[in-house]
This record gives sequence, structure tokens and C-alpha cells, in this order.
Amino acid sequence: MTQSVDLNADMGEGFGPWCMGDDAALLDIVTSANIACGMHAGDWETMATTMRAAARRGVGIGAHPGFPDLQGFGRRRMTMDSGSLRNLIAYQVGAAQGIARFVGAELRHVKLHGALANIASEDKEVAWSCYEAALAAMPGAGIMVLAGSAQQAAAEEIGAVAIHEVFADRTYNDDATLVDRKQPAALIHDPDIASSRMVEMLQQGAIITESGKVIPTRIDTICVHGDTPAAVALAARIRDALLTHAIEPRRFRCVLTTVE
Amino acid sequence: MTQSVDLNADMGEGFGPWCMGDDAALLDIVTSANIACGMHAGDWETMATTMRAAARRGVGIGAHPGFPDLQGFGRRRMTMDSGSLRNLIAYQVGAAQGIARFVGAELRHVKLHGALANIASEDKEVAWSCYEAALAAMPGAGIMVLAGSAQQAAAEEIGAVAIHEVFADRTYNDDATLVDRKQPAALIHDPDIASSRMVEMLQQGAIITESGKVIPTRIDTICVHGDTPAAVALAARIRDALLTHAIEPRRFRCVLTTVE
Amino acid sequence: MTQSVDLNADMGEGFGPWCMGDDAALLDIVTSANIACGMHAGDWETMATTMRAAARRGVGIGAHPGFPDLQGFGRRRMTMDSGSLRNLIAYQVGAAQGIARFVGAELRHVKLHGALANIASEDKEVAWSCYEAALAAMPGAGIMVLAGSAQQAAAEEIGAVAIHEVFADRTYNDDATLVDRKQPAALIHDPDIASSRMVEMLQQGAIITESGKVIPTRIDTICVHGDTPAAVALAARIRDALLTHAIEPRRFRCVLTTVE
Amino acid sequence: MTQSVDLNADMGEGFGPWCMGDDAALLDIVTSANIACGMHAGDWETMATTMRAAARRGVGIGAHPGFPDLQGFGRRRMTMDSGSLRNLIAYQVGAAQGIARFVGAELRHVKLHGALANIASEDKEVAWSCYEAALAAMPGAGIMVLAGSAQQAAAEEIGAVAIHEVFADRTYNDDATLVDRKQPAALIHDPDIASSRMVEMLQQGAIITESGKVIPTRIDTICVHGDTPAAVALAARIRDALLTHAIEPRRFRCVLTTVE
Repeated sequence: MTQSVDLNADMGEGFGPWCMGDDAALLDIVTSANIACGMHAGDWETMATTMRAAARRGVGIGAHPGFPDLQGFGRRRMTMDSGSLRNLIAYQVGAAQGIARFVGAELRHVKLHGALANIASEDKEVAWSCYEAALAAMPGAGIMVLAGSAQQAAAEEIGAVAIHEVFADRTYNDDATLVDRKQPAALIHDPDIASSRMVEMLQQGAIITESGKVIPTRIDTICVHGDTPAAVALAARIRDALLTHAIEPRRFRCVLTTVE
Repeated sequence: MTQSVDLNADMGEGFGPWCMGDDAALLDIVTSANIACGMHAGDWETMATTMRAAARRGVGIGAHPGFPDLQGFGRRRMTMDSGSLRNLIAYQVGAAQGIARFVGAELRHVKLHGALANIASEDKEVAWSCYEAALAAMPGAGIMVLAGSAQQAAAEEIGAVAIHEVFADRTYNDDATLVDRKQPAALIHDPDIASSRMVEMLQQGAIITESGKVIPTRIDTICVHGDTPAAVALAARIRDALLTHAIEPRRFRCVLTTVE
Repeated sequence: MTQSVDLNADMGEGFGPWCMGDDAALLDIVTSANIACGMHAGDWETMATTMRAAARRGVGIGAHPGFPDLQGFGRRRMTMDSGSLRNLIAYQVGAAQGIARFVGAELRHVKLHGALANIASEDKEVAWSCYEAALAAMPGAGIMVLAGSAQQAAAEEIGAVAIHEVFADRTYNDDATLVDRKQPAALIHDPDIASSRMVEMLQQGAIITESGKVIPTRIDTICVHGDTPAAVALAARIRDALLTHAIEPRRFRCVLTTVE
Repeated sequence: MTQSVDLNADMGEGFGPWCMGDDAALLDIVTSANIACGMHAGDWETMATTMRAAARRGVGIGAHPGFPDLQGFGRRRMTMDSGSLRNLIAYQVGAAQGIARFVGAELRHVKLHGALANIASEDKEVAWSCYEAALAAMPGAGIMVLAGSAQQAAAEEIGAVAIHEVFADRTYNDDATLVDRKQPAALIHDPDIASSRMVEMLQQGAIITESGKVIPTRIDTICVHGDTPAAVALAARIRDALLTHAIEPRRFRCVLTTVE
């Protein structure tokens, strides 16, 4: 195969007695897993269990920090100054490293969650604060960014290894932002449409918007979901379509700098 | 001076808007600070602020993990299996490392908190589980143990750098355990008595119990408290008494193995 | 029908984005619902949604308070003095009343959850503390007690309306306690065995233990579960068996005293 | 005395091991206490202790619900839809009632806290949602509103018993809103200025803004604070000034409708 792409999904999003999504099924599909770090979801048990399962299958592991809001699953915007944000991110990335070391896995990347990710995709200062803290806590971490957003701009300015991400099940506006979830055309449910669209984007090296506009961008990873059986089926279809078109699902390359 | 000893205190035990104790005063007295890690007290802000202040004064920094019980301050016993305990410790030690790296400080040791420490001082298996996870998350960490307890036994068996601790304001039973807090003679409030007792223990290299029994032990660090003005005054008096008797308050030596 | 019995199940045991069990299916089977109150599970949303659904179907509603331990789902024992316990119960019962009033439903009973219920079934003082607070917060509440346990003794001494409960899927020791979950014979999975056993107990007015011992007791309610599809099927089978034997599933009678 | 006014303060704002402010001192000064309900501060213990102390001194008791954000003390804005808000308020008001009943005290009013109060003072729909739920959970509750704000408008429309509040230590803009805390002139620290200003407002029956504008309004209660010794001294001075000018500090009248 001449081309490859990473496939990532959020995982370990349970808490205590509660599960979310079908992590086992996803681990057979994706090549990178973003692990919730205890603030919006995930606890020490969930994190350890999920990281062990991911490591066993060779799936790359990343920290997925979010707002401290379990009840709202980190999806509510909270006003937080940049100093607090930095500490919050360093805490979560460190906690993920602690668990990763304990289970003998390697943490490779960081991806922001939920409302925090949304704010960071609009506001470069917020993204910068988060990434600066993530890199201080974990030098050399790959920073997974929404391609074309303020997240990408911040990661580039900060000199991070940016992993450019597109979404398999979301449509795009002409400025490369995602169509708002409240809009009817925001979500793509049809596996055929989603998978052929992903293949097309990868072949063209560009985001293709709802209007048909082509926005050239590097694409390192595709985000898929596993919260419903349909989402898992969609993810599997995309993986198949990639293979059919000689695009290999392979975790992104990442060479972490030595710590200390 | 021919002899030295570490002076440690729990710090960063606030949460959100709430403070506890006079950390600023303590930082002029102690040589090591045990920082709460977010489960029984301490949050990302408190941790960062306290570590920065400690690092600025050359005070050694340690993680102080406890049970996940903010409302009970980690002082209520909770039944938790050893697998959960390991993950819980790895999470907290990792979080502390994340903050330490972000603020440019160095984490050197781990000391258990509250009810978890009490259980670990009685039950070697519990202590072993906690220390094993702490060392996996932070190879080479100094493990601060209650001298003569199951904590010490576990740390020795596991081959950890054990930092042997005695308490300045607590009396001892003849089996080297602390007199129960509910007993009238459990706490020492008189600064003269507490400081001369510490000097005597250090000079003899032994715990001296209420009955006068002498139990030889290595003593690396003295635990003092800062939750009341009287506690801070007591800590200061002990520091002075040590200096008067040519015992230098100095943070314990610790050479961390390189991570990764 | 000449006989009736209440069928109760724990419900509303989700939290934030997480669900647990099939509440919708259970509401077609049971006649009383025990609603988690936010400490071990349940939040303001879950509580409101579940109470609305229960009220719509005429299912009786009760508060189901537990230990403040979301991550452990209230299943870990915590040491808590009786003063704290009282406040903790009053808080949760009050919160459930607040939601019940807001959604236009009526709170009728209180049943303890998890580790707190276990302790209260062994220790009459603990049960007494909890029930006293529950009744102060909600005068006249029905107190659902494990038949034959310290819970029952406490409720009787306190003069509460005690709702005597037996478990459909658990076996009994000869002292009327439940066989420990860790024992192989603790759980009954076979719907035929469970349902015929329930019918027999109700017809005899007695708990029938594993050894065949018959312990006469009043039986007001049967506890069923809904956390797995098999549990829901078991509950449905029991309901059917009751009807077949002319035992009507009907919510227990409860006349609340007027508040204020 | 021919005139009277209520003096209110937020209390019970500790959590677990942490205290905030000098509640004991404040209880000798104020006539109404707003009790935190466990979401931004306050737990079952703190609530019970504070309500008992308030009831003992004849100080009126109210619920003081806020956002579910302990670490941020409810001062961070969170996006929450009106359905969630209603449930959140009903939960907290109910919990406060549960504790009040258990300690034998009477809950009389509801006042919103922090960021939630700020939003409700700007957005009538938010205020309306909160008050509607509060009144459903506690029929007849007095609703303490920031005089001249959207809070007041909502309470009036909903037909609630509105308790009109002015702040002793905050300055006002010409539209009756509070000067933003970030502005240099937002806070009044001088006890002479604050107390004479309060007397003037009460005598004129009007808010007097920084520019000198007089905005006629009913004033039922004055908000004072107790988080610092200076704040307590300021509150005491205001009380003295009121007495000197024949204005009696007296808790507002409130006749709760009978529940159920």
C-alpha cells in the first residue's frame, strides 16, 4: 500500500459502574485510542482496563482531557482562565501517564474532549494554553488537532507534532469548521456516503465541504465513534473502504523525546 | 553538623476555594512537602501553586495520594481491592508528576494519606500494592514509611528507597505503632516535650515509647503539621531544637532513576 | 384475587451520560421503584426522568439513598458516624422529595442502597439512625426493610410503616440473612426456580432457606432487578407466576401523614 | 422603630473538612442565612450544622442553590438548558428542606448563588426556570431577588413572594446592575461609606448609583458577607448604623403555604 492513515476513537468513557460504547469492538477497527482522564469520564479503573486492552492489540494510546464535569460529560462550556486550563491539562495528561506506566503501555498523543475541544477549535489562545501544558507534562506528545481549525494553528506555532484529524461522520462548512450538530445535515449516518467521502478526502489530500469546496490539508487521522452499534458498523465500513482503496489503517508515527 | 534529618509536612490540602493550614509558614520550616493529589484534597490549581512555592524554597516535593473521598478528607476507611488500589495510586502519582513537570519542579517521593496510610501501616499487602503501583508510575521514587510499621516492611521487601518517618506530635505504643488518636495521651501539644523527644530519638536512633521502651530504628524524616497556628509553632520549635543540637534539617537524599 | 404483593426494583441508577439497566421494561413489571438520589448514582436529571416515567404508569416511588461514592456505586463500605449518616439520609430523601414535587409525583417510601443497606441489615443502630432521619425528612414514609434483618427490627422499634421485602434472585441462610454473593449458590438464575420459590414463600407467608427451613414472616414486597436482559426476563416471569397463582402484583398501601 | 429591613448573608459555604467565613460571627449580625446546598459548596454535615445554629438564634433560613461545580465554587458559568436547571434547583431546594426538617428548622426562602445568580439577573428566562422549580419544590417560598434585575422581573411575573435585595459592599450602575467586580470602584471597603449609603438607600427607598442617580425600589434585605474579618466588621457596622437611624434589622415576613 502506498498510503496510510490513522483511525482514532474516544474510549474508556465509562465511570465506575457505568460503561459507554463498545470499546472491544472499536479496538479491532481503530489504530489510536483517546482515553478519558477522569474529569468528564474515565476513572483509574476504566483507564487501566482500556489502556491494557489497547496496548494488547497494538492500538496507540492518547490522553483525552476534558472539563471537570462528570454529570455533563465535559460537553458544557465552562469559563476557565488560561492558568487554570494549563494546570487542568497537566493534571490529566500526568494521570494518564501514571496509569500507562503502571500497565506497561506507552502514551503517545493528546486530544482535547468535548466543549474544551470546541472552544480550542475556535480560540487559538485556549488551544495554545492546553497544548503548552500537555507538552510540558509530556514532552514530544503528538497533538491531535482538528484539521484547519485554531487547534491546528496553535499546535503549529508551538512547534508540536500535529496529527491532523478529519471526522468521518460530520459534515464541513466552507471555512473547514464542522457543521453545527443542531443542523439537520451535520451528521452522516449512511456508511456508504461516509466511507466514500473519507476515501475521496484522503485521495485528494483535502477536506471536502457540504457545498463541494475542496480545502487542501494534511490528513493524518480519521475520527470514528463507538457509542452505538451503528457507529461501530460505520467505523468498520470506513476501515474496509480504506483497505479496498489501498489506504492502510496504521497508527501515526510518533517518536517521543526522552523524558528527564 | 554531623547529623541531619528531613522535616516533612502535608501541604496543598485545600480544594477549589478552600484553604487548609498555613503552607507559606510551613515552607520556611520543613524540607519536604507531601502534596495532596486531588482525591481526598488538592486540585490542579492547589497542586500547581503549592509545588511552585515548594520548589522556589528548595523544599522537596512528594505525591500524597489518598482515598477518593473529598467530603471525608480521605479519613474514612473504604473497602477497595488491591487492583483498584494500584490503579488509584498510579493515577494520583501520575497526576502529581504531570503538574510537577508543568511547573518545572521535581517529584521525589510518595507518602500515603489518612485512612489509606492507616490501613497500609497495619496490612503489608495493602502497602505493597500501593508502593508497587507508585514505583511503576514513578520509578525510583522515595517511599516515605511509618518507621516500624507494615509500610516499612512492604517498602523493604519491594526494594524501594524507604524514607523512615517518625511523628513529632504523636506518642508511641511498645510495638512501634502510634497511640490511637482517641486515647488521651495520643497527641503531644507541649512544644518543649515534643522537641526534646525528637532530639532524643534522633540521638539514640530509636523510637521511644510512652512506657519508655527504646525501639532502635533508622529515622530519616520527622512529620510535622501546619493545620493550626499551634502546629506551626510546634514545627518551628522542633526545627530550632534540632539546630541547637547540631542536627541539620535537610531534605533526604534521593536519586531518581531515569524514566524511559 | 385474594392476595397481593408489591414488586420493587432499583431504578434511575444512571448518572449524567450513563444509563444502567432497562428502566422502561421494568416499569411495566414492578409496582414500586426505588430511585437513586445522587450520591452513589442518579442525578437531578435521571431522578426527574425516572420519577416522571414511574408516575405515568402508576408505579410507586421511593427514595433509595446510599453512600457518597459514585465511582464505587455505593457498594464499598465507608466508616461514617451516626450523626453523619442521619444528615446524609435527610439530604437524599429531601432531594428526592424536591424532584418528586417538581415533577408532580409522590414519594412514598425509603429503601437503603448497597453497602449502607448491608451494614443496616446487620447493625440495628445504623438502621435506626438512617430511618430516624428519613422519617424526620419525610414523616410517615414507608420504610422498606429486608425481612428478618436488623433493618426490620429498627423500623419496628421506631414505629415506622415497615414494608417487608424478600429477594427473588437470592438464596437465604437459616438465620434469614442472604447467602453471601461470593458463595456459588447465592444467586438464582433459573426463572422457573425463582418464580416458584416466590410463589411458595408468599403462599406460606415465610422465607424458605436453602436448607429448606421455613421462617414465618410478613412479605409485602419482592425485590427484582433490571440490570441485565436476563434480570428483566426473570422479573417478568415472577410477575406472571404470581398472576397464575392468584397473587396480584400491586403497590403496597401507604398513607403518608401530612407534612407541616 | 418605624422601619425594618432584613440582613442576609451566605453561610454554610464549607465542604467536608473545609470552612469558609465566620458563620458564628455573622449569625449575631444577620437576620437571614442563605445555606449552600451541596453543589457549589455545603454538604449534609455543613448544612445541618449551619441550619441548627441559625435556628437557635432565630435567624431565617433559605436554600442557596448553585451550579454543580465544587472546584469552581459555582462561580464559573456553565451552559445548561432550562430543563436541567429546573431539576437542578428542585434537587437542591429539596435537599435543603430535608436537612431543615431533620434539624427541626424551617426553610423560608431561596436565593441563587454565584454564576447562576449572575446569569439569572441578566436573563429572565433563566430566572423564571429556576424560580418555577424552586416554588414547585417548596410552595410559597420567598424568592430573594437582586432589586431591579431580571431576577425581580421573573419573580414578579411568576407571582412569587419577592424579597428585594441590595448589596452593602457593591456599587451600582445607572441601570441598577452591579458594577463589574473587575472594575476598580466595584467594591466598597470603607465601613462608614457602606453603612451611610445603606441608610440613605433605605430612607429614600431607592438604589443610589455611583453617578448619584436615584432608582426607586422596594428594599427588603441587605446582603452582607462574612468571608473575611473585614467583611464581618463591615456587616456589624451596617447593623449598628441601621439601629442608630431607627431601622430595625428584622427577618423578612414570610408565610409559607401549607405543603400537601
